[in-house]
Amino acid sequence: MRPIILAAAALVAASSAVHAADDLMKRSTELFAPIAGPGPEAKAASRTMIELGKSLYFDPRVSASGLISCNSCHNVGGGGVDGMETSVGHAWAKGPRNAPTVLNATFNASQFWDGRAPNLKEQAKGPVQAGVEMNNTPDRVEATLKSMPAYVAQFAKAFPKEKQPVTFDNMATAIAAFEATLVTPDAPFDRYLKGDAKALTAQQKKGLATFIDSGCASCHSGVNLGGGSFQKFGVAGDPPEAARPGADKGREKVTSNPDDAFVFRVPTLRNVALTAPYFHSGKIRSLDQAVRIMAESQLGKTLSDAEAADVVAFLDSLTGRQPQVTLPVLPPSTATTPAPSL
Amino acid sequence: MRPIILAAAALVAASSAVHAADDLMKRSTELFAPIAGPGPEAKAASRTMIELGKSLYFDPRVSASGLISCNSCHNVGGGGVDGMETSVGHAWAKGPRNAPTVLNATFNASQFWDGRAPNLKEQAKGPVQAGVEMNNTPDRVEATLKSMPAYVAQFAKAFPKEKQPVTFDNMATAIAAFEATLVTPDAPFDRYLKGDAKALTAQQKKGLATFIDSGCASCHSGVNLGGGSFQKFGVAGDPPEAARPGADKGREKVTSNPDDAFVFRVPTLRNVALTAPYFHSGKIRSLDQAVRIMAESQLGKTLSDAEAADVVAFLDSLTGRQPQVTLPVLPPSTATTPAPSL
Repeated sequence: MRPIILAAAALVAASSAVHAADDLMKRSTELFAPIAGPGPEAKAASRTMIELGKSLYFDPRVSASGLISCNSCHNVGGGGVDGMETSVGHAWAKGPRNAPTVLNATFNASQFWDGRAPNLKEQAKGPVQAGVEMNNTPDRVEATLKSMPAYVAQFAKAFPKEKQPVTFDNMATAIAAFEATLVTPDAPFDRYLKGDAKALTAQQKKGLATFIDSGCASCHSGVNLGGGSFQKFGVAGDPPEAARPGADKGREKVTSNPDDAFVFRVPTLRNVALTAPYFHSGKIRSLDQAVRIMAESQLGKTLSDAEAADVVAFLDSLTGRQPQVTLPVLPPSTATTPAPSL
Repeated sequence: MRPIILAAAALVAASSAVHAADDLMKRSTELFAPIAGPGPEAKAASRTMIELGKSLYFDPRVSASGLISCNSCHNVGGGGVDGMETSVGHAWAKGPRNAPTVLNATFNASQFWDGRAPNLKEQAKGPVQAGVEMNNTPDRVEATLKSMPAYVAQFAKAFPKEKQPVTFDNMATAIAAFEATLVTPDAPFDRYLKGDAKALTAQQKKGLATFIDSGCASCHSGVNLGGGSFQKFGVAGDPPEAARPGADKGREKVTSNPDDAFVFRVPTLRNVALTAPYFHSGKIRSLDQAVRIMAESQLGKTLSDAEAADVVAFLDSLTGRQPQVTLPVLPPSTATTPAPSL
């Protein structure tokens, strides 16, 4: 009888594994969603608008110096970030926070680490004017764009109903339209969510289960696995000073509410394997370490080495098809284009 | 008889205009040549090698800071230049000379304003190490590239016969191969050289005739309308200090020959309408003014307003089809990638 009993036991085990697997996929589809296409700003925009936005995104003349473009800190070919601890801007100034990725940013409920911009359009206006980033002014940006006939024509086509289409506000609209095309569908996890059980490795599935069971998904959920809420960095206990320097109180500065001290927008985890270093501080270069700090600080949980490795393997499955962007050919400066201001 | 005489005179005039036009095209084909395809470094390279070179060209991690790529100063979408007087590099340092265009640089007989590099490959090694540019070292570049498995695999494919393919030297080889694809065929002047008399406007033809008759073409000739010889900036008389600051003696520093004081490589005029500001000094923003200074300083000739305008119109005909480059998706940094050094 022995072999028969063993076979029956194996059958039961296999069947329960299948059930667990089905269950994991079902739970996942309830918590997360695959990327279905470009974001709303792109869907609402004309091809001309998106092309204009692309030119503006890559044009360093949007900055006062003529050296810094949106792509400098949000490199479309580099995970949508710059790989720096905190970004470097005008006159080599070091900015206060790590550059969030532009990839899939369209799916975030708000923008910036402190959520001070409600959408991509309002976000785009910030760095252009920030002294430590592009250090420019709306007037000077408009003068720059108006000095180039090719831009004037592009704005007129993109905003056909407006008499004065070349405005700072329209610049931001166009940049947002382009940015909303920068989505990364077809990650292994997207394919899994669509029913392909083989899209994740066994380890990635273990990591996914740990991710859900530990509570990570209570904030890192939805299409962007994050980007939808604000949370204190340090819910379960203060994180190491290295990861959360005390000087940056996060959202408190936006709301003036002491309850918002150390509150930040939950970042998307899509393409997180490409976007080191981590956290608003950019202080943590290792994804494994970032995962452990999150578990400790947010969930009061110490991950074993195996659990951390599994979660990192799962996070690797969030790397999607990266945007294929043809570099725009920028209009040449003219005699009236403001000279670079260093 | 009057009408008949007039008609005959008109016929003679028209016929001589046709002859003059034929003659201009014939003289042009003797002096210049159209772009026939990519440069030799690209023709000799595999697709893999060119793709690797493209990644390296756009990868800011080739610089010590992780902020500056080849494309920062030689923007493929911006006429192959940065639009700055002189380039800005590491720690916001201002470099000594205006960035020459990368477009069609493969057709130059030497590289840099003082010709100190014989070819694109040797050129590529310079800015990576220059303190005011990328401020990096060959060892650190190699360590950076070796830290990323995707780069290691790309180098192995691009240099299949080498045991240690990830070298600084091979980096330069690959970058040169990519740069040699950055050519701009099909400019109106190229079509004219191939026999399309209508490719140039009447004014452009007048400008072309002035360009040849004044002697511009004695240096600005060949496929690149320049790039083939060295000349003193100030053959016929010292140019204004603004255009040729006295501190930069040009090629004298390379050869230690006092005869080479103020000698520079003759730049290509292809896409010159896109590459302001002008001269090694980058001091002159207007192409009209640059043309007049050249005529005075090199040829001892004062151009009339009409002549200068005609020559500028002709130079506009040198703007070719700009490269269509898909931005590379760069390999992610790893735990062993050297951290950005600001």
